[in-house]
Amino acid sequence: MSLDETSHKPHDRLAAFLAEDMAAVNTLIRDRMASEHAPRIPEVTAHLVEAGGKRLRPMLTLAAARLCGYAGAHHVRLAATVEFIHTATLLHDDVVDESRQRRGRPTANLLWDNKSSVLVGDYLFARSFQLMVETGSLRVLDILANASATIAEGEVLQLTAAQDLRTDEGIYLQVVRGKTAALFSAATEAGGVIAAAPEDQVRALHVYGDALGIAFQIVDDLLDYGGSSAVIGKNTGDDFRERKLTLPVIKAVADASEAEMAFWRRTIEKGHQGDGDLAEALAIMARHGAMERTRDDALAWADKAKAALAVLPPHDLRDMLSDLADYVVSRVN
Amino acid sequence: MSLDETSHKPHDRLAAFLAEDMAAVNTLIRDRMASEHAPRIPEVTAHLVEAGGKRLRPMLTLAAARLCGYAGAHHVRLAATVEFIHTATLLHDDVVDESRQRRGRPTANLLWDNKSSVLVGDYLFARSFQLMVETGSLRVLDILANASATIAEGEVLQLTAAQDLRTDEGIYLQVVRGKTAALFSAATEAGGVIAAAPEDQVRALHVYGDALGIAFQIVDDLLDYGGSSAVIGKNTGDDFRERKLTLPVIKAVADASEAEMAFWRRTIEKGHQGDGDLAEALAIMARHGAMERTRDDALAWADKAKAALAVLPPHDLRDMLSDLADYVVSRVN
Repeated sequence: MSLDETSHKPHDRLAAFLAEDMAAVNTLIRDRMASEHAPRIPEVTAHLVEAGGKRLRPMLTLAAARLCGYAGAHHVRLAATVEFIHTATLLHDDVVDESRQRRGRPTANLLWDNKSSVLVGDYLFARSFQLMVETGSLRVLDILANASATIAEGEVLQLTAAQDLRTDEGIYLQVVRGKTAALFSAATEAGGVIAAAPEDQVRALHVYGDALGIAFQIVDDLLDYGGSSAVIGKNTGDDFRERKLTLPVIKAVADASEAEMAFWRRTIEKGHQGDGDLAEALAIMARHGAMERTRDDALAWADKAKAALAVLPPHDLRDMLSDLADYVVSRVN
Repeated sequence: MSLDETSHKPHDRLAAFLAEDMAAVNTLIRDRMASEHAPRIPEVTAHLVEAGGKRLRPMLTLAAARLCGYAGAHHVRLAATVEFIHTATLLHDDVVDESRQRRGRPTANLLWDNKSSVLVGDYLFARSFQLMVETGSLRVLDILANASATIAEGEVLQLTAAQDLRTDEGIYLQVVRGKTAALFSAATEAGGVIAAAPEDQVRALHVYGDALGIAFQIVDDLLDYGGSSAVIGKNTGDDFRERKLTLPVIKAVADASEAEMAFWRRTIEKGHQGDGDLAEALAIMARHGAMERTRDDALAWADKAKAALAVLPPHDLRDMLSDLADYVVSRVN
């Protein structure tokens, strides 16, 4: 999602507050993506890293650590770790999805080839692993190992759940954790752990990251159908065309009449889609209030994220994280 | 390489000696490749794991740990870790190389698709990472993180070095460490570390694994050209057709006359190959003694592996590891 649309955005305030730490993270990322003998690696990585993602995940780590009073240097390593894992998953995702554009630029698999994307992704995973080991914290390693497994499992699940109308909200949530929330929650939790925060705060940071990530992804999935207004824009319906079972469709399928079920079977399961099918899908979803109920779910996850922050110490960063949760759902509210 | 060709093979003696440990490793592998919600994962993994690789790498870990007197249970986790990393790299390799056969069966990328191979490989990496964390040894994590980076860097290097006649023996060695030796040396070194062996023994185990892996890969590359006998068999010349710069070719290119250089440019750099070119390549290599010199290198690495074992305690396993080094090069000697 784009976070550039309003001024005083919490993301920009976080970036300003954490500017010095983020500069150190960027230096470390550039340093560690180098490879003396395989120049293909920094080429591919730089293409993606310098395309200017929002660096939301490393900022979550830095914010969590600072918020818990951390004054060391490991949070910078952790933040770079998290960004490397994210970049590696993007490289592999683009191969899996056969994507041609990412962040407004041609994808690495298009500019180079799938081979380079697979292998450079593996390299970034390995580099992230080295960085984590440097923090010397087995608990941090445990958190990130578990997140890595959740991410990979969620990706495979998404692959097999696509086109399968039996996909329910439970499976959707697992896919969403894999795609987004597992790395968000690992980013915030690891920040608390490295700061040696009390257990209840570490737990709260995990819950915050998890709920924020889920809200973030539900909003993304909702916007793919034009948001709750259900106006068809130029990018509307990509998930429908790719026959992905996202939350609005899952809700509509759960309540489907026999005729509607036949429609979903034809368009999602069999992939026979024609003119007017997207409009029909939106009409069916509107009939069951699927968009509104999806939006309500996103808002509830954002509320859960904000509520989790209560046990954390009062701090400008805490306010920014709370505002970030509101901001993430503001585009559909 | 196949290790089934003679009786009393050191590999079989290792398997017999370590049978109980290996049974525990196999149980752990089956247990950890399960995924409740993404059945694609165990399907793909089982296809590869149960195809019956030789499990050489996990046996190296077990042998190193036992040889150093280890009596705990972490060596089983480490051995499973090493096999998972190996399996993950095979899945990704087959995507990168567009392979259609592995261990005499169709590859996963052929049976399922490239997507599944990429994502299940990622899952196995993540699972291996969780297993290592369970050993609680930061030093083991450091060894395996570094090995992972060497493996991925070597793979990228191989991609960019292919078809490049400037590839020298130094680059070849890095590629070989990435393809084979980095995981061998991590397997043996980590076994020593988990056993809390003295530093000189840990170092020796690293040198042994590294040298054994290099010898193993050089032999493989030599056999691709029919071994030192240079007889053209049905599988001869795959590397030539794929325009890979392996050691025999690198040695021949380094000594090439102007006419020979033109031949290499046409066949390897430009990829214009026709009938008789493989025979011509073999003739050029024979002219420069490239096969014999490559074989001599393999023997020297095997000797280095055996010599490293001297500081390790006298033990049946030590003898088997020494014999294994001889056995690896026996097919070209």
